[in-house]
Amino acid sequence: MARLLLRDLAQVATPAADGPVARGAELRAVAVVEDAYVLCDGESVRGVGRMRDLPAVDGDVEELDCSGLCAVPGLVDCHTHPAFGGDRVVEFSLRAGGASYEELHAAGGGILSTVVATRALSGGELEARVRRHAGWMLAHGMTTWEGKSGYGLDRETELASLRAIRAAGGLPTWLGAHSVPPEQPDADAYLDFLLAEVLPEAAALADAADVFLERGAFDAARARRYLEACRGAGLALRLHGDQFTESGAIPLALELGARSVDHLEATGDAGVRALGGSAVAAVLLPSSALFLDRPMPPARALADAGAVLALATDFNPGSSFTTSLPLVASLACTQLHLAPEEALVAMTLNAAHVLGATGAGRIAPGSRADITLLDAPDWRYLAYHLAGDVVSAVVRSGAIAFRR
Amino acid sequence: MARLLLRDLAQVATPAADGPVARGAELRAVAVVEDAYVLCDGESVRGVGRMRDLPAVDGDVEELDCSGLCAVPGLVDCHTHPAFGGDRVVEFSLRAGGASYEELHAAGGGILSTVVATRALSGGELEARVRRHAGWMLAHGMTTWEGKSGYGLDRETELASLRAIRAAGGLPTWLGAHSVPPEQPDADAYLDFLLAEVLPEAAALADAADVFLERGAFDAARARRYLEACRGAGLALRLHGDQFTESGAIPLALELGARSVDHLEATGDAGVRALGGSAVAAVLLPSSALFLDRPMPPARALADAGAVLALATDFNPGSSFTTSLPLVASLACTQLHLAPEEALVAMTLNAAHVLGATGAGRIAPGSRADITLLDAPDWRYLAYHLAGDVVSAVVRSGAIAFRR
Repeated sequence: MARLLLRDLAQVATPAADGPVARGAELRAVAVVEDAYVLCDGESVRGVGRMRDLPAVDGDVEELDCSGLCAVPGLVDCHTHPAFGGDRVVEFSLRAGGASYEELHAAGGGILSTVVATRALSGGELEARVRRHAGWMLAHGMTTWEGKSGYGLDRETELASLRAIRAAGGLPTWLGAHSVPPEQPDADAYLDFLLAEVLPEAAALADAADVFLERGAFDAARARRYLEACRGAGLALRLHGDQFTESGAIPLALELGARSVDHLEATGDAGVRALGGSAVAAVLLPSSALFLDRPMPPARALADAGAVLALATDFNPGSSFTTSLPLVASLACTQLHLAPEEALVAMTLNAAHVLGATGAGRIAPGSRADITLLDAPDWRYLAYHLAGDVVSAVVRSGAIAFRR
Repeated sequence: MARLLLRDLAQVATPAADGPVARGAELRAVAVVEDAYVLCDGESVRGVGRMRDLPAVDGDVEELDCSGLCAVPGLVDCHTHPAFGGDRVVEFSLRAGGASYEELHAAGGGILSTVVATRALSGGELEARVRRHAGWMLAHGMTTWEGKSGYGLDRETELASLRAIRAAGGLPTWLGAHSVPPEQPDADAYLDFLLAEVLPEAAALADAADVFLERGAFDAARARRYLEACRGAGLALRLHGDQFTESGAIPLALELGARSVDHLEATGDAGVRALGGSAVAAVLLPSSALFLDRPMPPARALADAGAVLALATDFNPGSSFTTSLPLVASLACTQLHLAPEEALVAMTLNAAHVLGATGAGRIAPGSRADITLLDAPDWRYLAYHLAGDVVSAVVRSGAIAFRR
């Protein structure tokens, strides 16, 4: 197996928690080694330590001089919507002039305009789009990412979306219940169709299922029906919840044992307490709140309540056209009142946990050899260098996958 | 002279105003040509138009295939502080944990910690730092930028800062009155020193003078004294005003005929009306407001009142560690309620006006051959693609200066 030695790193920074997830005090615990090396052996990390403790390495090893660079775990984006056609730049421009997201959605813009553009693509065109987006993600330091379907809302395009996401290296989540399609505005009839006609094959292609539980999309009863059927087919569960209104997503997620509830901009004290005491992760999407100029989620309260916090981009054309987890780290520190340590853990270890991506999200012997190299004297530039070209290179599965 | 033909551009977008500055309806006026070319002849643009109207070009000309790209004028950053040593990543991390900017400043962090780090650099080291920062700016599409001194606060370092900025390609502004230095806490005595010992040489090195008019820095009477002396020495005038409190910066700027008042996060209705009717530009710095989690400036009201609006990064280590005008465009559209057209004009034509950079900030026959190429099907991706690698290449003075 090929070996790769990252040498003379200014710092290696990694979540310090021993377990698969960090909450409470562990959410703030980042272990930093200065003047360090990381030795990768095939797809795993073999060793991490001070340069002065570098063991003799026998046999062939590729060496990379990392002077002036810091290493963090390859970033993990646990919430993206990368399978779409077209864009929403006109809608973006209209919103800048004063229209609200819900108004645009109600006027036939919003998700449905992307559904039309996505259905118009061939399978190959859709895969090319997702691969292009995956390239953007890699350049921002992401080595593991989830991608949702949900701009097809028909059998063919939903399944093509899941295939395209897997082909481009992502972990597919089936979001058939993203919106009701224009040709079937009855939500119950649409769910009948989804569960009878799409679920059997989607369950074989995806890792998880997700639903948009919100006024104008699916209510709690319909979300429960969809998720229970998906669970029965072997899929892990996710929920879009409390984005605009508190609609019962958190109690439902707890009851069903979902992996996460995502968004939470509208979550109040009771929801914070409930998530604080549960194993369901709170996935926060501050770039979406910024993009829509909406209130930020109660991140500080969730962290202080002991919630399993994760951060993601929510990459999508309508409400968060960004693939930059470094930007999300900056927003976490400036808008969510999280420490850089909390931001890092939330977009590595905890995000990997949400995806069931065992071994990702840390740099330690036996972990995945997925490492993001920052062009910075201190790893906290990940958040500090706002919209900077902070990602210098990315190692994925033990090989250099990107260099700026 | 060398000629460069940019051909097959998806779009060329440029401020439509005829005059040197745009306000009111002209602030929203962007002329877009689709399927276009731009012909550069030496350091000037010779022609712009539809590809089908491309004239025969005799003699040698370098051609660049710009399929899939959009052209906007080289971006102009009219407010940066690039001459500094060290960083403020520790302060950033503390602030994320709850400390306010003013508290950190009062505790001896803030500007003065950067002053210590900047004074510790040799002239060559300082110039290397500014050149590194200028490289970041270029990669974000900036072809013209202003840089302020103000982290020296002694004769040698202030003058070295101005020289380093000029050497790195920037337009220097002397910000001797940024803060009072630790060795001379009496503001009047410090101004005596600045005007007697530094101004004569600073006036030969800089284009403009600037002052930080704010509680804890310089009050209006001292700002007036400093600016009047600088005006007498031939410098154009700028002011940092209304960042945290309304302290009289706008009336003073109007009275003295300053080029701009910058920040304005605390500006109320009277200030908006005053700027709306004046030739003094309002320079807004939304990335600074984001970085410090402070209120955004009243951009929409200023635009509607007819103010000469400009946008800038405020790049500096303490309150806006970003060189990305594309990010500022995104913040303008999502946080300041400006249209993409207003954002573009504010960071090209109007920003060039603030700097007296004649011929910069538009793409038209006779304008500077400074052009930023966007990897996007629509020029509004400049704002829409949040923290994306949207800048594909930069032409400066008719030559390709950057390619991603």
